[in-house]
Amino acid sequence: MSTRTLIRGGLVITAAEETHADVLTDGERIVALAASGSDVAEGWHADRLIDARGKYVIPGGVDVHTHMEMPFGGTCASDTFETGTRAAAWGGTTTVVDFAVQSVGRSLREGLDAWYAKAEGNCAIDYGFHMIVSDVNESTLKEMDLLVQEGVSSFKLFTAYPGVFFSDDGQILRAMQKGAANGGMIMMHAENGLAIDVLVEQALARGETDPRYHGEVRKALLEAEATHRVIKLAQVAGAPVYVVHVSAQEAVAEVARARDEGLPVFGETCPQYLFLSTDNLAEPDFEGAKYVCSTPLRPKEHQKYLWRGLRTNDLQVVSTDHCPFCFSGQKELGRGDFSKIPNGLPGVENRMDLLHQGVVEGHISRRRWIEIACAAPARMFGLYGRKGTIAPGADADVVIYDPAAEQVMSAETHHMNVDYSAYEGRRVTGRVETVLSRGEVVVERGEFRGRAGHGVFLPRCTSQYLN
Amino acid sequence: MSTRTLIRGGLVITAAEETHADVLTDGERIVALAASGSDVAEGWHADRLIDARGKYVIPGGVDVHTHMEMPFGGTCASDTFETGTRAAAWGGTTTVVDFAVQSVGRSLREGLDAWYAKAEGNCAIDYGFHMIVSDVNESTLKEMDLLVQEGVSSFKLFTAYPGVFFSDDGQILRAMQKGAANGGMIMMHAENGLAIDVLVEQALARGETDPRYHGEVRKALLEAEATHRVIKLAQVAGAPVYVVHVSAQEAVAEVARARDEGLPVFGETCPQYLFLSTDNLAEPDFEGAKYVCSTPLRPKEHQKYLWRGLRTNDLQVVSTDHCPFCFSGQKELGRGDFSKIPNGLPGVENRMDLLHQGVVEGHISRRRWIEIACAAPARMFGLYGRKGTIAPGADADVVIYDPAAEQVMSAETHHMNVDYSAYEGRRVTGRVETVLSRGEVVVERGEFRGRAGHGVFLPRCTSQYLN
Amino acid sequence: MSTRTLIRGGLVITAAEETHADVLTDGERIVALAASGSDVAEGWHADRLIDARGKYVIPGGVDVHTHMEMPFGGTCASDTFETGTRAAAWGGTTTVVDFAVQSVGRSLREGLDAWYAKAEGNCAIDYGFHMIVSDVNESTLKEMDLLVQEGVSSFKLFTAYPGVFFSDDGQILRAMQKGAANGGMIMMHAENGLAIDVLVEQALARGETDPRYHGEVRKALLEAEATHRVIKLAQVAGAPVYVVHVSAQEAVAEVARARDEGLPVFGETCPQYLFLSTDNLAEPDFEGAKYVCSTPLRPKEHQKYLWRGLRTNDLQVVSTDHCPFCFSGQKELGRGDFSKIPNGLPGVENRMDLLHQGVVEGHISRRRWIEIACAAPARMFGLYGRKGTIAPGADADVVIYDPAAEQVMSAETHHMNVDYSAYEGRRVTGRVETVLSRGEVVVERGEFRGRAGHGVFLPRCTSQYLN
Amino acid sequence: MSTRTLIRGGLVITAAEETHADVLTDGERIVALAASGSDVAEGWHADRLIDARGKYVIPGGVDVHTHMEMPFGGTCASDTFETGTRAAAWGGTTTVVDFAVQSVGRSLREGLDAWYAKAEGNCAIDYGFHMIVSDVNESTLKEMDLLVQEGVSSFKLFTAYPGVFFSDDGQILRAMQKGAANGGMIMMHAENGLAIDVLVEQALARGETDPRYHGEVRKALLEAEATHRVIKLAQVAGAPVYVVHVSAQEAVAEVARARDEGLPVFGETCPQYLFLSTDNLAEPDFEGAKYVCSTPLRPKEHQKYLWRGLRTNDLQVVSTDHCPFCFSGQKELGRGDFSKIPNGLPGVENRMDLLHQGVVEGHISRRRWIEIACAAPARMFGLYGRKGTIAPGADADVVIYDPAAEQVMSAETHHMNVDYSAYEGRRVTGRVETVLSRGEVVVERGEFRGRAGHGVFLPRCTSQYLN
Repeated sequence: MSTRTLIRGGLVITAAEETHADVLTDGERIVALAASGSDVAEGWHADRLIDARGKYVIPGGVDVHTHMEMPFGGTCASDTFETGTRAAAWGGTTTVVDFAVQSVGRSLREGLDAWYAKAEGNCAIDYGFHMIVSDVNESTLKEMDLLVQEGVSSFKLFTAYPGVFFSDDGQILRAMQKGAANGGMIMMHAENGLAIDVLVEQALARGETDPRYHGEVRKALLEAEATHRVIKLAQVAGAPVYVVHVSAQEAVAEVARARDEGLPVFGETCPQYLFLSTDNLAEPDFEGAKYVCSTPLRPKEHQKYLWRGLRTNDLQVVSTDHCPFCFSGQKELGRGDFSKIPNGLPGVENRMDLLHQGVVEGHISRRRWIEIACAAPARMFGLYGRKGTIAPGADADVVIYDPAAEQVMSAETHHMNVDYSAYEGRRVTGRVETVLSRGEVVVERGEFRGRAGHGVFLPRCTSQYLN
Repeated sequence: MSTRTLIRGGLVITAAEETHADVLTDGERIVALAASGSDVAEGWHADRLIDARGKYVIPGGVDVHTHMEMPFGGTCASDTFETGTRAAAWGGTTTVVDFAVQSVGRSLREGLDAWYAKAEGNCAIDYGFHMIVSDVNESTLKEMDLLVQEGVSSFKLFTAYPGVFFSDDGQILRAMQKGAANGGMIMMHAENGLAIDVLVEQALARGETDPRYHGEVRKALLEAEATHRVIKLAQVAGAPVYVVHVSAQEAVAEVARARDEGLPVFGETCPQYLFLSTDNLAEPDFEGAKYVCSTPLRPKEHQKYLWRGLRTNDLQVVSTDHCPFCFSGQKELGRGDFSKIPNGLPGVENRMDLLHQGVVEGHISRRRWIEIACAAPARMFGLYGRKGTIAPGADADVVIYDPAAEQVMSAETHHMNVDYSAYEGRRVTGRVETVLSRGEVVVERGEFRGRAGHGVFLPRCTSQYLN
Repeated sequence: MSTRTLIRGGLVITAAEETHADVLTDGERIVALAASGSDVAEGWHADRLIDARGKYVIPGGVDVHTHMEMPFGGTCASDTFETGTRAAAWGGTTTVVDFAVQSVGRSLREGLDAWYAKAEGNCAIDYGFHMIVSDVNESTLKEMDLLVQEGVSSFKLFTAYPGVFFSDDGQILRAMQKGAANGGMIMMHAENGLAIDVLVEQALARGETDPRYHGEVRKALLEAEATHRVIKLAQVAGAPVYVVHVSAQEAVAEVARARDEGLPVFGETCPQYLFLSTDNLAEPDFEGAKYVCSTPLRPKEHQKYLWRGLRTNDLQVVSTDHCPFCFSGQKELGRGDFSKIPNGLPGVENRMDLLHQGVVEGHISRRRWIEIACAAPARMFGLYGRKGTIAPGADADVVIYDPAAEQVMSAETHHMNVDYSAYEGRRVTGRVETVLSRGEVVVERGEFRGRAGHGVFLPRCTSQYLN
Repeated sequence: MSTRTLIRGGLVITAAEETHADVLTDGERIVALAASGSDVAEGWHADRLIDARGKYVIPGGVDVHTHMEMPFGGTCASDTFETGTRAAAWGGTTTVVDFAVQSVGRSLREGLDAWYAKAEGNCAIDYGFHMIVSDVNESTLKEMDLLVQEGVSSFKLFTAYPGVFFSDDGQILRAMQKGAANGGMIMMHAENGLAIDVLVEQALARGETDPRYHGEVRKALLEAEATHRVIKLAQVAGAPVYVVHVSAQEAVAEVARARDEGLPVFGETCPQYLFLSTDNLAEPDFEGAKYVCSTPLRPKEHQKYLWRGLRTNDLQVVSTDHCPFCFSGQKELGRGDFSKIPNGLPGVENRMDLLHQGVVEGHISRRRWIEIACAAPARMFGLYGRKGTIAPGADADVVIYDPAAEQVMSAETHHMNVDYSAYEGRRVTGRVETVLSRGEVVVERGEFRGRAGHGVFLPRCTSQYLN
């Protein structure tokens, strides 16, 4: 007989509701909710009782943009699936969707299998995969059908990184047509990489090698351009498109314009764009390298447009783009040449807290917090029902969140396998207390109680935003 | 001891979820949900069991724009609170928010008390009131504070109907400033009435007396103009604004533009604008009079922009503006002068079905249906938590809806007290089967089982869209 | 036999051309242009020879917005037609179009005749009239036809100044319909006066009496609102509309939006909005009163949008809205109550120089300078061909302009009848050297050589922008 | 001593003026204008007198987009510089700017010299060259400086035609940076060629080989996309950009959006987009091939947006993109495969008449006709002053135009070296009567009086729109 957990007395917050309810799980699922204090609720008994009075009871976070063990620029992201998913759990995230990578000249299958192998048996929480398509051709296009059937129902392409992940507009169009046919969601890294490479070369030629030039050459206008372009290509293909890590005000405007026309265009941003800026990139002594990621951090004034986009639903999802590289030995590869700095920031552990801080500071409501961090990403990528909400039948991925606790973010205390924090010293209000993943406690009041291998692969249906 | 009802085996649909769950009510409230077939659910027993297999279990509809017994143009809307709320229940609506009217020169209090008296003891379902402010002055402005405290937390003003409900821009600004201060929501009928009156006079002078001229003189541009104007006045006041019965594409565009800027601007449309058009106004033999309402029906091509607005959330609410006048004796007052036709259509009974038809025809999703018809109107006007959803603690206002049943709308079979149907002969898929209002069955498989006086007045908090 | 003047060797600048040409006038007209140094040019002889080598030869300025001897707020603009038109000539302006005023309850005729009488025999340069319509009614509307025939082909209405010049939206629509029928151009002062009056009353009640509050209560959003409104009313009427003294970025945007749609919507701004700002309104010791005009000066950051509007042709005309009141005795009426400060600035003498300064500072090209100051205003109000250009057949209104001379603007040296300069101490490059009005020299190297009564009334045809 | 011509009594129309004036030319230049009937005019005598009473006297047309003897798809445009410029003269055009072509792997110099050789001694009218840059690289970029100095001050790049003229976004950015530095104007053919090639391949695979599929695969959205893209690249480069042959409403919108922001973005359209449509492409029996050009003809409803763009100045220039291929033997290369049809239409002879027809039909004013066909193209490409206007000092390129004459366009009567007319059978009002090129009569009342070799190469300065 399965284990029952009763979470009593908390404020259950989902994207839609704030209810004083007791939550009963049975085995891996949430089985029932009842009004706190009602006869029904009082009549329940369980193997484990969690007292959530004064706390929030929220769905486990869903982070749909992580890169564990990701090879990039001759090195590899420093979090393995084991360390990375454990850190995610610490931060209240119970699902990640990571990116399997096709190598140019190889099949999607081969890439996907490699990522299955990396993840299997190592994850503390459940996980799925998107597929990075580096080489669109007849055979790849056919494989896409198989992957959708297998539950890998989203594909990422790049207008950036020529010679690495870059696809040309014809390839992008073909992939989008395929997505329109098989329901796969095309995710786009939208920056004009060909133009950026010109600016990189010119900056380096001028001796502009500091990390801050990374931000200057990857211009907001070139993000906006590529965003507009992929939207138009998707419109021609009759396909939806999901723009990853939108960072520039001008790119938000392009997404908003398309959505006003009723097009199935979606936008994601990340905490680093909401909380960090080019000021960080300009930190002296090569410290700016810690903040090198693409799309780059933008000047501070962009932040308010991102928050606004989250409020107006022009942006739907906040993920982390978690892709950590240690400062020492990894980020340092780019000393003297910013273009050699591995692109990426750690963040999978910080997302739920940073967004709650957005609630505290009045940028978004509590429900919107849960929507952008749990419900919308789950729905966007075919996990809703199981993930992203607290409802009868859903997976028992539940977080007890203390909205009043304070914490200071720091590499000293975080659990990600990286030697710095992008938010070092930042004080925030709110902290994860207890985390359940499919009914099992994985984090409890400052102790990790989970295990590598608890997490299972999640085959995903097609996007539930399109029904 | 209170009565328990168990609704078993249906698909519970809310704005956020579609769950196979059993719903347990206890007295007037929903007390718990459990996964259908689970041990917990199977363990429940109740006084009344409703078999909802194959059916939808949805929140009772919330219609925030009705005019029962409304005096207009020398006559009075033909539905009383008794007949009107009964018809609402038949149509799956369990909450109405009606409009109390201040007479020019009198206090809000006086008007509100008159409406309390009309409704009390007569309603089949719960009801609340907005207050029409016809006479903005120092004393009215003070009364607005009192009404918000009393649970009448929304106020309607008009840029239309000079000499009747019209307020000038200075008065509107003052009322909005008051709303900004006390949390009251300002609702605007946005048409440029002064300009329209000129066009009416000129049309009549040209001998254009047929009902179809009603649609021609009340131009879309003049709706768009007033919509823009009230948005700017609200922006100056720092207040939210809710634009009622948006019917023109150009007005939707103004609402959308404001929302893109992050302004707290909201828009409502009505089924008549989604399903009827100027073609109806042009029906011969004065039949067009049946479709005279303001804002007027628009040419058919506007419909797709309204549906799009509902999908993009530029419009949030669909209400009915139910304000029935019999063709015989009432609409006929305008023979020979379209400006004398009482403005208004019956519809309170048809809304849930027509919007479900929108689901059937692919305009909106099932969840969006519930959102625009139940959740959003409840949240907009401070009723959410009690109304608009199915969750532990909410009022047990529940509808069992048969999505496969077919019906033909007709004055012969409807329950509204009016001698015609605006949708006569229209075949739709989907039908209300059973309706619970605060735990009591009021409609059950073709029989009205409720009673006048069951419905209670709902004091409302301020808009939950603004937190 | 008539007098011939030959202007030799200058750079003739019109809205379209920059030509090294000699200009020959004969009597009141320009009769021919010939390439400088050509046999034809060298063969010319004349009664008067003006050496324009190194100088610009430009059309006399056309200022289509002046208020000489204008009664306002219990006092009267301090420039008479004699002093004001003389100052205009000093500043290189050879045509003014002033505003005749209808008093409420009186006819247009009566108002126009009063203004004819004020001007006749007193003007140094040619003049025309627009008609301010204060009281739109059946009889006024009929008079409008007569005025168009008489050459008073433009009519100004106000959404501002309730109780004084204000027309309601119905009246404005009627006047616009009339304009659509008889070709008269409707000019609109676009500010929401009803809303502004509320804000004025509230500001004064809070003790905010300083001139700077004039700028705060007359909000940019309320200018934008009214601008949008009059555009929509014009669209309904099928009429063109000319928005006077556009000062706010948001209002420029409304004009631009309409023009993008191809609507016959026109916009004017004034030098004070290009060169002055709310910083001036905030000058201490009531000095801010010198800068009180409506629409009000805006924060500095609006200036670049006005210059941009002039470059993109979203704004077509720069006039002065010259309406001077002495600081001493007139502006002072508003000490302790900014709403009692007479609205208006002196400027008729400064316009050509300030706009040339815009050329010097790179905001506009030389040709655009002439276009916005001479050609476009003439064309807008039916004077082109006679005024606004240098071409065979045009009136010999010609200015020899020294682009290299420097001057400092000051009340000490200006010729307007007002005790302060809005541009006191401002150093600009460029100065009028010689001015011809219909072939007669009126200003020559620092001496006024004209006379009261030289200027004649100009009957105007309808706008030449509409052909 | 040089020859004088006196053109007497016509209505002189330029972009800015309509003047009853006599025009006197002396040698190759216009030397003077005088009011018709004035003593000055009457005193003139000349070697040749042209009676222009009842006629328009207009500047010779300036067609800045022609392709004489252009190799394309294995064949060559059928007009040589001799036949093409003669036909231009017949049609009232006295200046063409043609496109020299760089071959991939060769220098600009080599390409330009080849075109110099083709043109020299063969042209009936004056001509200049733009340079098509097919291969942007370090050496090409350096050559661009030399060409600007040599008077070839504009460069065309393509986002279309991969493998032929296509440049990638990095190359385009580099060329634009060069243009920003040396003043050269970058002209862009803006269609997403990579995406189009996918659609072409797919269409052919489906058996869609008819000419009308040419219009279907080259989608309006893909023109709009590329238009937006090149605008953003230009913005990044700080360069102006001129978009050639804008045909789609959506592309006009992108140009308009950029211009509203004050960016130096310019747009050209062509008569075929104003007068022809996809209806022509769909003509049976392969007749549609006559209308195959890129950008393609669009559905009829786009036409009104192009006319509107010309009125609102969002489009500044109308050129022909004259690139004729005979139906027989050339267009026929694409039977069975629309992608093999040589792209291009004849039109250099028809432009002035078709645009005058636009005046007759009320789309544009007479002055705007001259502006878009003569003045703006001259100014855009550094010819103004010499070409595009009638003013003292300008080249004596003058057309006497009979606005009342009727003609029927036909291959039977036209002078272009091509076996069909795109406007066969079209009746228009207005016809060229006499044409002067630098003072010499080249066409006179139905006879060609010019000669190959009269036309000279025009070195051009940089764009006069940018001062």
